[in-house]
Amino acid sequence: MEFRVEKDFLGEKQVPAEAYYGIQTLRAVENFPITGVPVHSELIEALAHVKKAAALANKKTRMLPPSIADAIVKAADEVASGGLADQFIIDSIQGGAGTSINMNMNEVLANRALELLGRGKGEYFHCSPNNHVNMSQSTNDAIPTAIRLAAYKLTGRLTETLGQLKFALEEKAKQFDDVVKMGRTHLQDAVPIRMGQEFGAYAAVIGRDGGRIARAADSLLAVNMGATAVGTGLNAKPEYIEEVVRLMATDFGIPIHAATNLVDATQNTDAYTELSAMLKVCAVSLSKMANDIRLMASGPRTGLSEIHLPERQPGSSIMPGKVNPVMAEVLNQAAFQIIGNDHTICLASEAGQFELNVMGPVLAFNLLQSLKILRNAVEVFVRYALEGMEANRDRCAAYVHGSFGIVTALNPHLGYEVAAGLVKEALRTGIPIKELILEKHLLTQEEMDVILDPVQMTTPGIAGEWLITGRDSE
Amino acid sequence: MEFRVEKDFLGEKQVPAEAYYGIQTLRAVENFPITGVPVHSELIEALAHVKKAAALANKKTRMLPPSIADAIVKAADEVASGGLADQFIIDSIQGGAGTSINMNMNEVLANRALELLGRGKGEYFHCSPNNHVNMSQSTNDAIPTAIRLAAYKLTGRLTETLGQLKFALEEKAKQFDDVVKMGRTHLQDAVPIRMGQEFGAYAAVIGRDGGRIARAADSLLAVNMGATAVGTGLNAKPEYIEEVVRLMATDFGIPIHAATNLVDATQNTDAYTELSAMLKVCAVSLSKMANDIRLMASGPRTGLSEIHLPERQPGSSIMPGKVNPVMAEVLNQAAFQIIGNDHTICLASEAGQFELNVMGPVLAFNLLQSLKILRNAVEVFVRYALEGMEANRDRCAAYVHGSFGIVTALNPHLGYEVAAGLVKEALRTGIPIKELILEKHLLTQEEMDVILDPVQMTTPGIAGEWLITGRDSE
Amino acid sequence: MEFRVEKDFLGEKQVPAEAYYGIQTLRAVENFPITGVPVHSELIEALAHVKKAAALANKKTRMLPPSIADAIVKAADEVASGGLADQFIIDSIQGGAGTSINMNMNEVLANRALELLGRGKGEYFHCSPNNHVNMSQSTNDAIPTAIRLAAYKLTGRLTETLGQLKFALEEKAKQFDDVVKMGRTHLQDAVPIRMGQEFGAYAAVIGRDGGRIARAADSLLAVNMGATAVGTGLNAKPEYIEEVVRLMATDFGIPIHAATNLVDATQNTDAYTELSAMLKVCAVSLSKMANDIRLMASGPRTGLSEIHLPERQPGSSIMPGKVNPVMAEVLNQAAFQIIGNDHTICLASEAGQFELNVMGPVLAFNLLQSLKILRNAVEVFVRYALEGMEANRDRCAAYVHGSFGIVTALNPHLGYEVAAGLVKEALRTGIPIKELILEKHLLTQEEMDVILDPVQMTTPGIAGEWLITGRDSE
Amino acid sequence: MEFRVEKDFLGEKQVPAEAYYGIQTLRAVENFPITGVPVHSELIEALAHVKKAAALANKKTRMLPPSIADAIVKAADEVASGGLADQFIIDSIQGGAGTSINMNMNEVLANRALELLGRGKGEYFHCSPNNHVNMSQSTNDAIPTAIRLAAYKLTGRLTETLGQLKFALEEKAKQFDDVVKMGRTHLQDAVPIRMGQEFGAYAAVIGRDGGRIARAADSLLAVNMGATAVGTGLNAKPEYIEEVVRLMATDFGIPIHAATNLVDATQNTDAYTELSAMLKVCAVSLSKMANDIRLMASGPRTGLSEIHLPERQPGSSIMPGKVNPVMAEVLNQAAFQIIGNDHTICLASEAGQFELNVMGPVLAFNLLQSLKILRNAVEVFVRYALEGMEANRDRCAAYVHGSFGIVTALNPHLGYEVAAGLVKEALRTGIPIKELILEKHLLTQEEMDVILDPVQMTTPGIAGEWLITGRDSE
Repeated sequence: MEFRVEKDFLGEKQVPAEAYYGIQTLRAVENFPITGVPVHSELIEALAHVKKAAALANKKTRMLPPSIADAIVKAADEVASGGLADQFIIDSIQGGAGTSINMNMNEVLANRALELLGRGKGEYFHCSPNNHVNMSQSTNDAIPTAIRLAAYKLTGRLTETLGQLKFALEEKAKQFDDVVKMGRTHLQDAVPIRMGQEFGAYAAVIGRDGGRIARAADSLLAVNMGATAVGTGLNAKPEYIEEVVRLMATDFGIPIHAATNLVDATQNTDAYTELSAMLKVCAVSLSKMANDIRLMASGPRTGLSEIHLPERQPGSSIMPGKVNPVMAEVLNQAAFQIIGNDHTICLASEAGQFELNVMGPVLAFNLLQSLKILRNAVEVFVRYALEGMEANRDRCAAYVHGSFGIVTALNPHLGYEVAAGLVKEALRTGIPIKELILEKHLLTQEEMDVILDPVQMTTPGIAGEWLITGRDSE
Repeated sequence: MEFRVEKDFLGEKQVPAEAYYGIQTLRAVENFPITGVPVHSELIEALAHVKKAAALANKKTRMLPPSIADAIVKAADEVASGGLADQFIIDSIQGGAGTSINMNMNEVLANRALELLGRGKGEYFHCSPNNHVNMSQSTNDAIPTAIRLAAYKLTGRLTETLGQLKFALEEKAKQFDDVVKMGRTHLQDAVPIRMGQEFGAYAAVIGRDGGRIARAADSLLAVNMGATAVGTGLNAKPEYIEEVVRLMATDFGIPIHAATNLVDATQNTDAYTELSAMLKVCAVSLSKMANDIRLMASGPRTGLSEIHLPERQPGSSIMPGKVNPVMAEVLNQAAFQIIGNDHTICLASEAGQFELNVMGPVLAFNLLQSLKILRNAVEVFVRYALEGMEANRDRCAAYVHGSFGIVTALNPHLGYEVAAGLVKEALRTGIPIKELILEKHLLTQEEMDVILDPVQMTTPGIAGEWLITGRDSE
Repeated sequence: MEFRVEKDFLGEKQVPAEAYYGIQTLRAVENFPITGVPVHSELIEALAHVKKAAALANKKTRMLPPSIADAIVKAADEVASGGLADQFIIDSIQGGAGTSINMNMNEVLANRALELLGRGKGEYFHCSPNNHVNMSQSTNDAIPTAIRLAAYKLTGRLTETLGQLKFALEEKAKQFDDVVKMGRTHLQDAVPIRMGQEFGAYAAVIGRDGGRIARAADSLLAVNMGATAVGTGLNAKPEYIEEVVRLMATDFGIPIHAATNLVDATQNTDAYTELSAMLKVCAVSLSKMANDIRLMASGPRTGLSEIHLPERQPGSSIMPGKVNPVMAEVLNQAAFQIIGNDHTICLASEAGQFELNVMGPVLAFNLLQSLKILRNAVEVFVRYALEGMEANRDRCAAYVHGSFGIVTALNPHLGYEVAAGLVKEALRTGIPIKELILEKHLLTQEEMDVILDPVQMTTPGIAGEWLITGRDSE
Repeated sequence: MEFRVEKDFLGEKQVPAEAYYGIQTLRAVENFPITGVPVHSELIEALAHVKKAAALANKKTRMLPPSIADAIVKAADEVASGGLADQFIIDSIQGGAGTSINMNMNEVLANRALELLGRGKGEYFHCSPNNHVNMSQSTNDAIPTAIRLAAYKLTGRLTETLGQLKFALEEKAKQFDDVVKMGRTHLQDAVPIRMGQEFGAYAAVIGRDGGRIARAADSLLAVNMGATAVGTGLNAKPEYIEEVVRLMATDFGIPIHAATNLVDATQNTDAYTELSAMLKVCAVSLSKMANDIRLMASGPRTGLSEIHLPERQPGSSIMPGKVNPVMAEVLNQAAFQIIGNDHTICLASEAGQFELNVMGPVLAFNLLQSLKILRNAVEVFVRYALEGMEANRDRCAAYVHGSFGIVTALNPHLGYEVAAGLVKEALRTGIPIKELILEKHLLTQEEMDVILDPVQMTTPGIAGEWLITGRDSE
């Protein structure tokens, strides 16, 4: 392999001649062989947008010669649309608050710009990673800004997918609206409920979860571009700050704005912890729902068997014909990952010190992963589990018929103690409760028909109320 | 001790004759000797308000005879204002989704009402815990509603205290606005910043944290009163539902409203996970701030010693004269507790199944504790650490004078590489950087005076910009 | 109220004349009104043992006059056996690494000793909290030592209770050894298993959990007594160190020994994180088991209904006759609390800096709580849920009879694909699998009787193996 | 692209003609596009070993024809040494407890074996993924066994690296043994300590951490091979079970043994939670150490500056000459990731139900990642941060000289109160403490020289003890 020699204030290093990255990238690769997983491509692309906007703003404020600015912009456009992806070789978990990925970008854009300017790679006098590409910037503003852009874009996709989930759940709520089943509390028979009400409840919480995530994402819109090293804006002209933010907003199509307090926006990572916390809240809801659905789908013969899920793949390498609720299971697992990631994010966020949080790389790694896997898991769950889900109406009806839970409707008429006695007796003797009621002359058949109507029990009110108030009013 | 005998559908039990609680309370005491910590008094009081409103609503809808209703209301008023506190003897962590604490309340109110009605304790025919006090209710709506009321009230106090913290930080920001110090990133010397900017950044994040918590608390306002057992409202008349919520809102002075979807509101606990998550986000911010303040206050001789905290207590049983930053330390610890509690809350929330989350007791235990200790820790931190805090101006000035960080301002004039070379040489030779610059004829003294002014460096812009653009425009 | 005036190097304070605590206790009460929960009594008692041993060791090494030493010892004995409990008024969460609770103890013992010596409270010249009671000690060795003693003692009680759980599970394993039921994986019908095997599996994991906790507790035995302020042993004579540890071991009946490296033992809190981690691992196992048991007990009519739990209390304030698995639920909740506490413990442990971890109070608060509630929850679970648990043998048998899972035993004979086809056909047509097999002449009735014997399927091996290998050997 | 058609009991699918994987792999790829990160290669390789051993054991027990067995073994050998890696295309997070990755392996091995047997891909009659490659196995024993093998192997590498870290820390402890510095507690000046003692303390805790991890790994050695579907061993001959475990132990070079209780070993995942918990405990220690080192290295001018770290890369894109402690920072980040992963692992582990924990994929994903990144981060930390670390002896000496902490040694001579008064006076007046002591005739110069010797203070004992006991003995 052929090499060129690059140097920085710590010394020299041989860089592959063909490489667009440079010496600082190589140092970082050597220093950080941690996860083997590269930086999220969404972050790379967002950072390219940041660099492009910075170059244009520096050009406009006459800090950067137009020819150099234009070359950087062109290079950044290429990277922003997925070009030169193999030149970004830094590990996701890296020391240094993102300096390495920032310098990887600065070096790639500088070398590509040099090429566009007809220069050789490494001729940094003509276009320098630090002086030209990174002009008016610091890692400490460019990287947090790129993280915010990437996270905001991914959040948009996620909330859209959560919207689809909500819609699909509402469709199921309609489809199952007339399926009366036994409600369960403590996993014990409770009182009748319609399966549609259950799916309506899932839809409702997912709706709130989506709303919370969208609101949390708004906190990402205040970027600290122009903060430079510690938030004071040293070496960044006010006109530049205004311009760079305006350009990013336009270019990226996201309504970002400059943070009111750049010192604050540089050191505090609450925008990440807030968003991750809301992802976690959503993950908790999703995991609960997935658990319910796996319970309802349990069986076919020795479980609850209230619903039937689409069969997506053979469920066992040994048990013939077995099919498992894999789409719900993968939703659980994604939820667990997100909850764990939130923990990492909090630890990293708490570790900020003074003017900066240097744990940016692990923050970005986890936050962007959470956003992506949550969306992916929800999307396939909707498509492969929810859409083809069917209710087992016979089984649900049989449960309602066989359970004692309906005695609750007797409370206003007979009192809690008498009703409890009936349940005990029925359990002991095996005699159906309705029979016991007639035998003891507690109610007539007509009264029972009204009071013990399961469908009626799924809406507010006291069935046969006139029997009580009628008596009262006499 | 004298006893009375009470019975329920599982059998009989001797209850101390004087006790207002009854058989079910005793069963729960026997079953749940877990933490030794009683249920939060705020929850007891909120539940009394719930019971009062239910009695009034049941009276109005003619389900409950006025005399019984009035006696229950009077009893509930007593409990709501702290009366009979020693009758609530159930452990904070209890099985059963709160049935035990609900029945403890039902029994206490029934027996106190019986007393007011001139009856003996235990004469439940005249006022029954289940049939009268609990009328139109279930544990599954009364307890979540009470948790929400208690949490909302505590959140109000907390956000007020966070407001005081924000204000106190802003005062410090003003007081320290002219204290120029060295900013630090990675704990390494960076560039100058004003201490007032640092405290302004703390104020800003605390402001956001308070806002987030307040917004999250709004989710508590949708109560599921009237949901009864599974959210369908079985045995609760629609007029009752409307009335009971209206009465609670008025009585408790909180703008609660009935949840749109009572099934949803009965099974989902996202209002708790959301609030706890926002407390956690705030705890992360507070812990970071406390860490910074402990670092700034480190010393007096072998630390950074940039600020001086009020001396609150001798810091060591062995080291004479030592004083520690105990108020910041206790803030850290409260933050850690809240973050751990959030974890418990998520686990408990994820464990909901079908129509109910039966982990309500541990949810309430942790959520209310978090709300209380966060407020308590912040309150004493403001009063005992923040208000009397002073800057060590001499030390801050000395740091600025002695550090190399100011060379960053040279970038636009000399380029990153030349500036880096100056730092290396200064470190190696011990010659001050300004001297090196003059020696090498890089800048004149006048130019340096403008470019290297530390105060100027704490605001955006390029010091001595005309030196560059002036050249450019020629 | 009457007062005496005490002073320290920060000033004076009025102390209630009757109080055994002094000025530093009062300062701490003022500074730390955080949780309202006092320090665990087990920690107070362990600390009294530490003080007693220190006084005796100081007497023996001729640092402390015998009369003063004896008075301190007598006072410490009183506190160690629960005396003067109302004098320990510091909050569980306190700044200062335990200095406040250490000084609370020093002051109480000093004043009680003064009383025993015929002196008035506050006459510290004759017996001083710092100079005499705290002699040769620092908060930084006395408090960690006391935490270890208390934690070790509580661990002993816990592992004993876990032993009872293991025994009770093994008893159930025997009792249910002949109950053949359908095993479930993914909550889907799998292959037959005996309920005794399931309870045997619970017993096995609890056995490991107990062993892990016991091993982790061994790490507590290395105490840092004699480390004084930073672990170097400044002001502690080597003879004293040897003697104080020996005395504590004898007095407390625990085989503690001095840590090999006192600097290490003073700053590192891995003994706590290790123990808490093992409690967490156990909590995870317990929660899984509690979940299983709640699932098996689900019903009575609309759940799995494989077991019947003792009825401990009415399960609902509204649903008559309902009984819930409250003892399993409270075990889940205790487990969630312990997992959350472990998180707090890790955060606090990670926050150690240099020679000390100042987050000791929150560490002790959570660790001791976890030890206590785990034991309490397990104890009542064994007594009230496990001992009276019964299998629903009819239901289990019906499940085995009705399920398709048994076809797995056909694999070696017919192959996975043919067996899967049979399941599909049986599900579609409703024709029993055995009938299909005969119809298709796949196996004879005799062969089926051997191959499809459910009891046989619960042990290793291939039923009817000779049918295959017999054929092969021909 | 050319295709072949494969079918399973759910239908048909086109498979690329060249592919070694088959229909079930394709179904899983469609179902689980979650993380984009493939299954850890260590797991793939371990699973190949499992398959090889199973084929050999099935051959030996005469269940599998020798020719087929041999072909499978050859194929497995290829995969075990990294061959056909591009055929394993399932996502790390997948539903189904590992069925998909198990079937991916079964299909690849079957097709490669078919090729070796001179057959075409997909001719499963001659070598079937389910009937031949998966013979006597279930996902539920093969996958947990492979996870254990992979985790054990990675743990071995990790503990070796932790051993190197311990050694390197001990070397530093020797190198810095004579560097007296001020100890700090609460970040406040405490009493002198030798830097070597500090690094000795790090070495000690890392030693314990390594030991804990190694012990935890022993729990991995009990594998559930032969358990098949639910642990009962259905379809696995006892001779096979014995043989397969023996072969794996030999082949893989790891002393695994069959679990005593296969039902237990199939459903419980405590071996993972235990190991992860110990990784977490280690991560907490490492993060604390990294924090200390970053604090000691803070500066160069405005921090503590007690040590100097090797300069690994330019630390800022904007601040010239800045170098950051990136190797310590990356260690912190790896630690945070591991702590978060542990959380995910606990959630997934708690989610086990009945005979199986179906969250295996997310468990393996996180556990193996934790093992790998912990090792990677420690390895580069040792090489790039620890080995070249130097003490700043001048600065350390200056701290000792300038601090008041040494007054603690005066306690036994003057009492805590007098010593505290001296500190107060020195702070107020600026007069050195030694001067004040002489001025007040508290001690002579000679006595002070003995009592206030900093080096002496770093070991146990009372300097100038004879001054006290001498007096006493008179």
